[in-house]
Amino acid sequence: MKRRTHVLEPTGDEMRRMIAAATERIVAHIESLPAQRASDLEGADALARSVAEPLPREGAPLEPLLDRLFGELVPKSLNTAGPGYFAYIPGGGIFHAAVADLIADTVNRYIGIWAAAPGLVQIESDAVRWLCEIVGYGADAFGIMTSGGSIANLTAVITAREDRIRAGILPRRFFDGVVYTSDQAHHSVAKAAALAGVPASGVRAIESDGAQRVRLDVLERRIAEDRAAGLAPFLIVANAGTTNTGAVDDLAALAAIAARESLWLHADAAYGGFFALTEEGGRLLAGLPLADSITLDPHKGLCLPYGTGCLLVKHRDTLRRAHHADAAYLPAMAEGDEQINFSEISPELTRAFRGLRVWLPLKLHGIGPFCDHLEEKLALARLAAAELRAIPGVEVVADPQLSILAFCLAAGGRAPEDADRLNRRFLERINARGRVYLSPTILSDRFVLRIALLSFRTHEERLRQGLEDIRAAAAETLADE
Amino acid sequence: MKRRTHVLEPTGDEMRRMIAAATERIVAHIESLPAQRASDLEGADALARSVAEPLPREGAPLEPLLDRLFGELVPKSLNTAGPGYFAYIPGGGIFHAAVADLIADTVNRYIGIWAAAPGLVQIESDAVRWLCEIVGYGADAFGIMTSGGSIANLTAVITAREDRIRAGILPRRFFDGVVYTSDQAHHSVAKAAALAGVPASGVRAIESDGAQRVRLDVLERRIAEDRAAGLAPFLIVANAGTTNTGAVDDLAALAAIAARESLWLHADAAYGGFFALTEEGGRLLAGLPLADSITLDPHKGLCLPYGTGCLLVKHRDTLRRAHHADAAYLPAMAEGDEQINFSEISPELTRAFRGLRVWLPLKLHGIGPFCDHLEEKLALARLAAAELRAIPGVEVVADPQLSILAFCLAAGGRAPEDADRLNRRFLERINARGRVYLSPTILSDRFVLRIALLSFRTHEERLRQGLEDIRAAAAETLADE
Repeated sequence: MKRRTHVLEPTGDEMRRMIAAATERIVAHIESLPAQRASDLEGADALARSVAEPLPREGAPLEPLLDRLFGELVPKSLNTAGPGYFAYIPGGGIFHAAVADLIADTVNRYIGIWAAAPGLVQIESDAVRWLCEIVGYGADAFGIMTSGGSIANLTAVITAREDRIRAGILPRRFFDGVVYTSDQAHHSVAKAAALAGVPASGVRAIESDGAQRVRLDVLERRIAEDRAAGLAPFLIVANAGTTNTGAVDDLAALAAIAARESLWLHADAAYGGFFALTEEGGRLLAGLPLADSITLDPHKGLCLPYGTGCLLVKHRDTLRRAHHADAAYLPAMAEGDEQINFSEISPELTRAFRGLRVWLPLKLHGIGPFCDHLEEKLALARLAAAELRAIPGVEVVADPQLSILAFCLAAGGRAPEDADRLNRRFLERINARGRVYLSPTILSDRFVLRIALLSFRTHEERLRQGLEDIRAAAAETLADE
Repeated sequence: MKRRTHVLEPTGDEMRRMIAAATERIVAHIESLPAQRASDLEGADALARSVAEPLPREGAPLEPLLDRLFGELVPKSLNTAGPGYFAYIPGGGIFHAAVADLIADTVNRYIGIWAAAPGLVQIESDAVRWLCEIVGYGADAFGIMTSGGSIANLTAVITAREDRIRAGILPRRFFDGVVYTSDQAHHSVAKAAALAGVPASGVRAIESDGAQRVRLDVLERRIAEDRAAGLAPFLIVANAGTTNTGAVDDLAALAAIAARESLWLHADAAYGGFFALTEEGGRLLAGLPLADSITLDPHKGLCLPYGTGCLLVKHRDTLRRAHHADAAYLPAMAEGDEQINFSEISPELTRAFRGLRVWLPLKLHGIGPFCDHLEEKLALARLAAAELRAIPGVEVVADPQLSILAFCLAAGGRAPEDADRLNRRFLERINARGRVYLSPTILSDRFVLRIALLSFRTHEERLRQGLEDIRAAAAETLADE
């Protein structure tokens, strides 16, 4: 039989042509980002459905596929890579990380075990240590790169569960275990607890204060009540920058409570953690290294493309104890600090070489430009709050603690449902202008708008355009009343 | 303050130069793969340690970093991307997938929710459906792309746990739940159970038969015993191609047992599943669609770079029920078949756009070349077994069911520990020649060698070189005795 496997290994010239075809479109796409709409979903559903097809029997040429991707499918989306994306948590996508992935994909070495590729495992270890350095962790800390914050939080809950079982704080039959977080926690925290087997009845969303920080008095009372009821508190999940408003819990106070109560303290710093690199953020996040574990998302604060999260732990052995396993077909693994086997300290065995996309940008630029980027976002958020206050009818509902703030059209004498309706129209009007894209949230039962500034492509000019659009939309929305 | 953020967004020309610099080295690297050693770890540890450094304050130019990577760090490794890598489960790394990642990284859209990028979510949905088609699943099936088989298996255990709780088979307090697999299962199965909260005492590694397939009689007896002891059997994990020897359990029989006993049947087909595309594999894997869930690793059988696994489920709602969550800051999500929200049916919220690296190669080539590649590997494994039998002193311990086989130097009259020592030297001698790299395993308490054929770069010529080296090493090793 004549086999067609040769097409799986293109020639050098074919590889160069494929890369050139992709690169031209990528460069054009990136260069046009400032001129692109911040969101464009018109006709997107029908377009998407036109892509559906069964498993292809025959091949198709590259260039038309690329044209379809870049010309139609990519643009019809929320422009998460653009400078006007102020919604949810803006993404990154620096080009240098994409170059790193191109290399990682093509050399395709196995980095789950030191002995399989020591130099590359060391690169990923370096990247992990740099992240430890950024949050202020000491020499005993270490961590793992994950696919994002959700798996990091899941791994944190599992690691906490196993550690507290080992310490005798939590019974091996852990169903009476209780996890504490705030009503502002990212939903991946409750989801992580559920996936880890903690019943929904064992997750406490403690109420937050006026600045969206967990209420310590309520937390302490609830722990005492749960203990009195025969339950087994074992984990506090602190917010180090909530998704809603960027609120930072009182980390030092939570660490004191956790220590007194023998609870694991996990800090979800997926969004906020990298602000430890800034002057102001550094003060706010000074308590971060007191946590037993920390989730960071380099694909947020460090401007990387989606797909790079990280879980750091204060004591490296806690990860190993929760994840270690043996198998006959695996090589004997050396223990010790010098020879890291990521597969032994994480839930994953075979996975991508994520470390290179963290390592290469930091090697190319040093940490300086990333610090500047984060300082810039803090300054822009303060600017936004000040400017919003000057817009008639607008109320700032949550001042920025980091780079997120919330605002709305003040209710005036309106009933709550009328105020919400008003603000929905306000949001639609802002987004319809296409220069910025904002997302809403619910704060104290009110529908409010958020501005989240985190894209490395967002600078003062785009923020000011957004503020202009907000000012105009406010006037129009109020005039319609 | 002068900010240095401009370096985070290179100009078009800078992007082109970076890509060109990387591409030249990548092409040279790939073109030289056939001439590279199958493993080269001499001095690798010291080299690796020389990379360790604190968080860089200053940047460094790209080209020297690339030279260090390609010239030193990558080569000092197990050459998992090379044609002579017959160890563990060989990796893929087709270039087309790397092009897909380059695009996904740079356009950096969010594909966790349909409404954020419908066309791209549809691309990933297509890719998932194609995988369903390959294993023979029907229209109600669906799935998720994962970072690899471990997270897929973990998600399978959690989904099974939640589904069986919902069905009233497993108590909400699932501590007495029991998972059944064979003594040949990949260690990620036991690890997944542990991470999902099933105690180690609740995992049964049922003994396998002479062909490394789970013994059905022992399984049934064990289930009855566990029930009699008041435990709650809820999950069978079948092997559809073991890592050790490629053994395929009797899937139809296991499905019958699972149905009779109301257990979830998960098939770990991470390595073996794609052989459903071949004539012989199709027969062996005919029972695969009877499983409630299936783990596939496109980074194995589909030749992709590391980092693409997948979990398929027979009934899509089972994934949703195990993973659904709400949050105030998330948009209202449409339900239904047409608008997939991957974040609702998987443990991950924000993660990489993995679908494109599956979709693009299949669009470019159609499924044909991948079928041919897998047929070729089956044929090579049969050839290897026949040729090994002709080598004096060599015993084939496990004939290939798919593309893995196991062999050793026959013990003759030697004590077991002497036979093991002999085979360790045999393995070292083969690998020292550098044309192929084999890994060992333990079968029936004996140290044996494996040949695993799965790289798209492995063709008959390289296998014959490996067999020459095996023949020579056998003669030398026996002559030394």
